Amino acid sequence: MRLRNKPWAMEFIDSHPEIREKNPKSWQGKWDERFNKAQPLFVEVGTGKGKFVTDMAKEYPDTNFIGIEKYESIIVSGVQRVIDEPVDNLLFLQENAHNITDFFGAKEVDRIYINFTDPWPKNRHEKRRLTNKFFLEKYEEILKENGEIHFKTDNQALFEYSIESLTDYGFLLKNVSLDLHNSDMKDNIMTEYEEKFSEKGMRIYRLEASLRKQ
Amino acid sequence: MRLRNKPWAMEFIDSHPEIREKNPKSWQGKWDERFNKAQPLFVEVGTGKGKFVTDMAKEYPDTNFIGIEKYESIIVSGVQRVIDEPVDNLLFLQENAHNITDFFGAKEVDRIYINFTDPWPKNRHEKRRLTNKFFLEKYEEILKENGEIHFKTDNQALFEYSIESLTDYGFLLKNVSLDLHNSDMKDNIMTEYEEKFSEKGMRIYRLEASLRKQ
Ligand SMILES: C[S@@+](CC[C@H](N)C(=O)[O-])C[C@H]1O[C@@H](n2cnc3c(N)ncnc32)[C@H](O)[C@@H]1O
Ligand SMILES: C[S@@+](CC[C@H](N)C(=O)[O-])C[C@H]1O[C@@H](n2cnc3c(N)ncnc32)[C@H](O)[C@@H]1O
Repeated sequence: MRLRNKPWAMEFIDSHPEIREKNPKSWQGKWDERFNKAQPLFVEVGTGKGKFVTDMAKEYPDTNFIGIEKYESIIVSGVQRVIDEPVDNLLFLQENAHNITDFFGAKEVDRIYINFTDPWPKNRHEKRRLTNKFFLEKYEEILKENGEIHFKTDNQALFEYSIESLTDYGFLLKNVSLDLHNSDMKDNIMTEYEEKFSEKGMRIYRLEASLRKQ
Repeated sequence: MRLRNKPWAMEFIDSHPEIREKNPKSWQGKWDERFNKAQPLFVEVGTGKGKFVTDMAKEYPDTNFIGIEKYESIIVSGVQRVIDEPVDNLLFLQENAHNITDFFGAKEVDRIYINFTDPWPKNRHEKRRLTNKFFLEKYEEILKENGEIHFKTDNQALFEYSIESLTDYGFLLKNVSLDLHNSDMKDNIMTEYEEKFSEKGMRIYRLEASLRKQ
């Protein structure tokens, strides 16, 4: 994602605390109270400009959504989206997903979305991949027992890696699609990157992972 | 695979008991004695005309190979291949893989190859897929603890199904390739179907599965 210098971004998102929660740690374990309604909580890590998570929030009003994005210059677009079309079941965090266990209590999250995350192709950057085992440990901590990870990517190598990493960790895989846009999946909500890549005719890969019952 | 009526096929394979073992049950648990040397045992189910397994046997003389194919009119080509270029570490069985646990003892097999197996796309035929859980149970029985299943296919839906079926059963996946012929995999030995499909520009999918340590 291009990082443009947006000096006004920080001020802008700071002036919308109802959309971008600045102190996620203070809501750890009690996000139900932060939202209007107590209902399932779905979290997207690496939200980018927020199209997916805002479209999801509109489509599924009976679910609370949180989009996590580390750059203020990017998440500012998500905040703008919610100003333009308000929803009351969506919040953004401008945070590093690395610290996700500080923001959510044990078994607080029903589902985690990871969409078109940076592939970090070099071996020495493996730890940065959001489907790396160090991240999976964090997800396991915050996910409910029947919680799920839903993952989409255009990147073949990252998808191959993620299948191995998830099954090695003990996740079951279901609804695997090796060509999402030529499959019979209904109700797919596209992300910004997904629109861009699928317009170019690139394959989109998708899977759902859930923890093996002990 | 086209089934031509080959009235001479049965007679031909019967006249080569050194290549096609007619009584696999009698060697259950002691294949080491049937071969020239006691060494690792790799089995291919649905061998077809036997190109893969004979090329493998030539390439890896320190491994014993068995190719299982249910139709005599097809396996006859494999027998012919070995007559043309003799190897002493390869046998064929003209049998249904369904009965595989009758032919091999518990933990007797080091590796199982499944290549371009019939996809059986209809749900009601799921049980016939060679990566179905009823087959996985049989494979688990005959595989060594660190044994592996190596699986290749051109069929996207079968590959998706197999990922789910294998991980659901408890297999770990590694060396997953979603486009084998554009990957850095070395030493790939092609099957007949693989040559045909890859010439047409179709993607070849591949994975290795091993049992989770208890
Ligand atoms: C390639 S973009 C994809 C954006 C969006 N999910 C989509 O599909 O259009 C990945 C985004 O994830 C963000 N990101 C990467 N690592 C992150 C992390 N550790 N924590 C939070 N955000 C992260 C990046 O800043 C970037 O905006
Ligand atoms: C599509 S062909 C592929 C042949 C070869 N593996 C290749 O890749 O070229 C599948 C073969 O598996 C055989 N086959 C299917 N089910 C089988 C079973 N249950 N037991 C033994 N052979 C089987 C079929 O007769 C056929 O020859």
